[in-house]
Amino acid sequence: MIWPGWSHPTELSASRVVLSLQINGDTDQSMSVAKTSPISPVDPTAAEPFYRQIYKRFRHAIASGLLKPGERIPSARALAQELGLARGTIETAYSLLAAEGYIQARGQAGTIVTPDLRPQPPVAGTKPSPVRGMAAASFRPDSILPFQMGLPALDAFPRKIWARLGARCVRAMQPSDMAYPPACGLQELRTEIAAYLNVSRGISCSPYQVFVTSGYRHTMTLIGHAVLKRGDRVWLEDPGYPHTRKMLEQMCMTAVPLPVDGDGMVISDGVRAAPRARAAVVTPAHQSPLCVTLSLPRRLALLDWAARNDAWIIEDDYDGEYRYVSRPLPALKSLDRDGRVLYAGTFSKVLFPGIRLAYLVVPEAQVERFEQVSEAFATDGPQLTQAIVTAFMKEGHFARHIQRMRKLYAERRDATAAGLESVLGRYMRIDPQPGGMHLVMRLRGTRSDRQLARRMREQGMRAEALRDCVMGGGGPSALLLNFTNIDSRETAENFAQRILRLL
Amino acid sequence: MIWPGWSHPTELSASRVVLSLQINGDTDQSMSVAKTSPISPVDPTAAEPFYRQIYKRFRHAIASGLLKPGERIPSARALAQELGLARGTIETAYSLLAAEGYIQARGQAGTIVTPDLRPQPPVAGTKPSPVRGMAAASFRPDSILPFQMGLPALDAFPRKIWARLGARCVRAMQPSDMAYPPACGLQELRTEIAAYLNVSRGISCSPYQVFVTSGYRHTMTLIGHAVLKRGDRVWLEDPGYPHTRKMLEQMCMTAVPLPVDGDGMVISDGVRAAPRARAAVVTPAHQSPLCVTLSLPRRLALLDWAARNDAWIIEDDYDGEYRYVSRPLPALKSLDRDGRVLYAGTFSKVLFPGIRLAYLVVPEAQVERFEQVSEAFATDGPQLTQAIVTAFMKEGHFARHIQRMRKLYAERRDATAAGLESVLGRYMRIDPQPGGMHLVMRLRGTRSDRQLARRMREQGMRAEALRDCVMGGGGPSALLLNFTNIDSRETAENFAQRILRLL
Repeated sequence: MIWPGWSHPTELSASRVVLSLQINGDTDQSMSVAKTSPISPVDPTAAEPFYRQIYKRFRHAIASGLLKPGERIPSARALAQELGLARGTIETAYSLLAAEGYIQARGQAGTIVTPDLRPQPPVAGTKPSPVRGMAAASFRPDSILPFQMGLPALDAFPRKIWARLGARCVRAMQPSDMAYPPACGLQELRTEIAAYLNVSRGISCSPYQVFVTSGYRHTMTLIGHAVLKRGDRVWLEDPGYPHTRKMLEQMCMTAVPLPVDGDGMVISDGVRAAPRARAAVVTPAHQSPLCVTLSLPRRLALLDWAARNDAWIIEDDYDGEYRYVSRPLPALKSLDRDGRVLYAGTFSKVLFPGIRLAYLVVPEAQVERFEQVSEAFATDGPQLTQAIVTAFMKEGHFARHIQRMRKLYAERRDATAAGLESVLGRYMRIDPQPGGMHLVMRLRGTRSDRQLARRMREQGMRAEALRDCVMGGGGPSALLLNFTNIDSRETAENFAQRILRLL
Repeated sequence: MIWPGWSHPTELSASRVVLSLQINGDTDQSMSVAKTSPISPVDPTAAEPFYRQIYKRFRHAIASGLLKPGERIPSARALAQELGLARGTIETAYSLLAAEGYIQARGQAGTIVTPDLRPQPPVAGTKPSPVRGMAAASFRPDSILPFQMGLPALDAFPRKIWARLGARCVRAMQPSDMAYPPACGLQELRTEIAAYLNVSRGISCSPYQVFVTSGYRHTMTLIGHAVLKRGDRVWLEDPGYPHTRKMLEQMCMTAVPLPVDGDGMVISDGVRAAPRARAAVVTPAHQSPLCVTLSLPRRLALLDWAARNDAWIIEDDYDGEYRYVSRPLPALKSLDRDGRVLYAGTFSKVLFPGIRLAYLVVPEAQVERFEQVSEAFATDGPQLTQAIVTAFMKEGHFARHIQRMRKLYAERRDATAAGLESVLGRYMRIDPQPGGMHLVMRLRGTRSDRQLARRMREQGMRAEALRDCVMGGGGPSALLLNFTNIDSRETAENFAQRILRLL
């Protein structure tokens, strides 16, 4: 088991917390807030901000046993109302408490006092050191939940090697490394990425075509400013990655949803419905979220459409490495003869999401345009992160890690599928897929995936509903279950038993 | 002296380099490119990309003494033409050579073989380790040049403390730290920033009003998407920070230039010319680039205009800490009673630019809106950077560093001003200013600041021309000279002598 079992929290009313806080305030001489009158709004001239007073009271109440491990605390909204304070003030106090491991948010299930917390009186006046803070952060609520989408196997990351390289890079930092880094990314990193793409993804590109960004969203911002404009129509897969849709909306572009079948995005529908669209966003390796592969005829049809219409293909290759039935397929970009494909890669899935590092490969003819926009928006990450990743790639750890993960994920995928099917086989079936980091589990009958996903969240399991990836919200019912952090068939069976009770 | 003296490079023609490369290609058995025929375009199926062959040939030519230290090599454009290759291919090779310390770009002065390079035969097949790579990067050309704007005193940064904290944070990294970090920034960092702003900048804000971003430009992107829209008119200081103008252009907003006098931005002009503008970007502490302080009546007039028109004031407080005549003034944000000020702070100037970390403080009523946009664009930096800065602030190094720098900058400013004036006093005069990180040196007579700045660049000194900060490009002639990296009056005098020869 990677996660501790969640115990059923007992509900605690806002009034009771207010009461405990007031009792606590009463016994704690440092608190000066009146017990009977509603607490007055935050006083900017007060030495201690209000959120901090709330935070301290909770900490004291937990440490002294007034609030017990596993007990549910009121929502920020309820407590804010009760105390006559802004919700944000309470949320800040809660965030601090969560960051230090005192409480845990459980999504829809509310927030509880950390179950396995040993009461420990806070030491007055001492600040937690970052190491303690970071160790405590392993309590952090929403960071790794069972089935949570988008996370690689964080337990299997070579943290020691990473720490060694990181320490070395931070010690080697020279004044010249501290100045403004090149807007398109460190040259050495761009060189390593280009070499990797050549070998592993069949993309023949030069380092100057590679733009380092601080994540997929910055990649999209860069693309949006460089080659698209407000009001442009963009083909999207439907179902698809909800964040892509949201970002296009934020940039005031119009999404044209295209259906996805067993061969991937149905290109012919796009050609019929919106031939003059300016761009198409696709996930050819394993369609997000259905995991199907874009077939070769479709790839060629898409490239042909783009070439005829001077449209852009944005290839989101977020997990192209993770194919289990054969060697990974070359990227769509490898077939791009007309310079229409903008290739978006990321280190979020092959390293870890907290690294905030991604990249974009642009056609040779677009390099200058992207350099200008890069200069204006400076989308790359800090020098240190880039230096660590460069070292990690140069020394061969990157290639080794991907190979190890491909093997591990194949195992975890089989184990998870077997565990889930043995318990839930009567109610669901798992789509056969060639790759990816999650399973698509179809619900038989008329069960709602959204409702089930919601119930699972209440139990600390973070599945996504397929319908939440569909633009209109309809279509078949299925759960999307990331398997990379499920370490054995037994773990999967345990979770399946819990899911069974929710049906 | 912080910088080595630049020697006058001797020019080397493209043909000669081609010749040396061909001679070199001749003696090097691993090179298979024909000597006499023009080199064919990059073959994507070739084992070694073309830029790498060029890179290797240069490396060999330098190591073997065919190209001598200090010798000028042809521009990428010229060599590309000569070899019949894309300019980008040559540029990539040059970047690699520069990153490894073989060559140095000198801006307008061209690119030369690193002057103090000891010839050393490259070891075939070995890749440079990141430590070597990073040490070599101290050769990096454009990173720290005399008078370069925007850089703090990089020699005075407590690198050892930083490295210690960095190594500790990277070692303490837990799986939960590797998942997606919160979109608005690490809670502990937001808390530290809020505390610092309360104490040092007079801004009363709660941590949840603080949004961590990966730089001023991302701050502006966030603001652009959250509260502005395409076509909006925005007041800008003129002269002003060119990048702000460029970014607004990229976001398709219309800049309304307002003049700057001894009291800062002339608000009344804005009220007359564009009362319905949606926002104003100001640098109240030390106007960028004139360094004047926005007077209290102007501050109140600006706040009044914003309140009446529901307009936004974007306060760019990039170097508010660096005031030498008295204690730093509180930020404009500290007077914001109507919640109209968006406060943009950055760690680029008080720590270092390569850190790529900044923040934005928004009014309480806007928190939810900014949270949504933050979620869509994920503008914060990597967990590791945020953790190191948190530790640096928590342990008091941040406050101590700022105090030390305020003292050091006051000294360096006086020394630089004295050194420059003793040599150039007949031709220029330095504006008296209360703070900032650069001097404004007015040219007497009709000399062109742009021409002088260009000539200085040719000599390896990176001054900016005031006219390049003016929207129309006209106005008085002055040089903008950063003094934070000038370590003594003697250094300043040496540079002044060089400037004198350019007049």
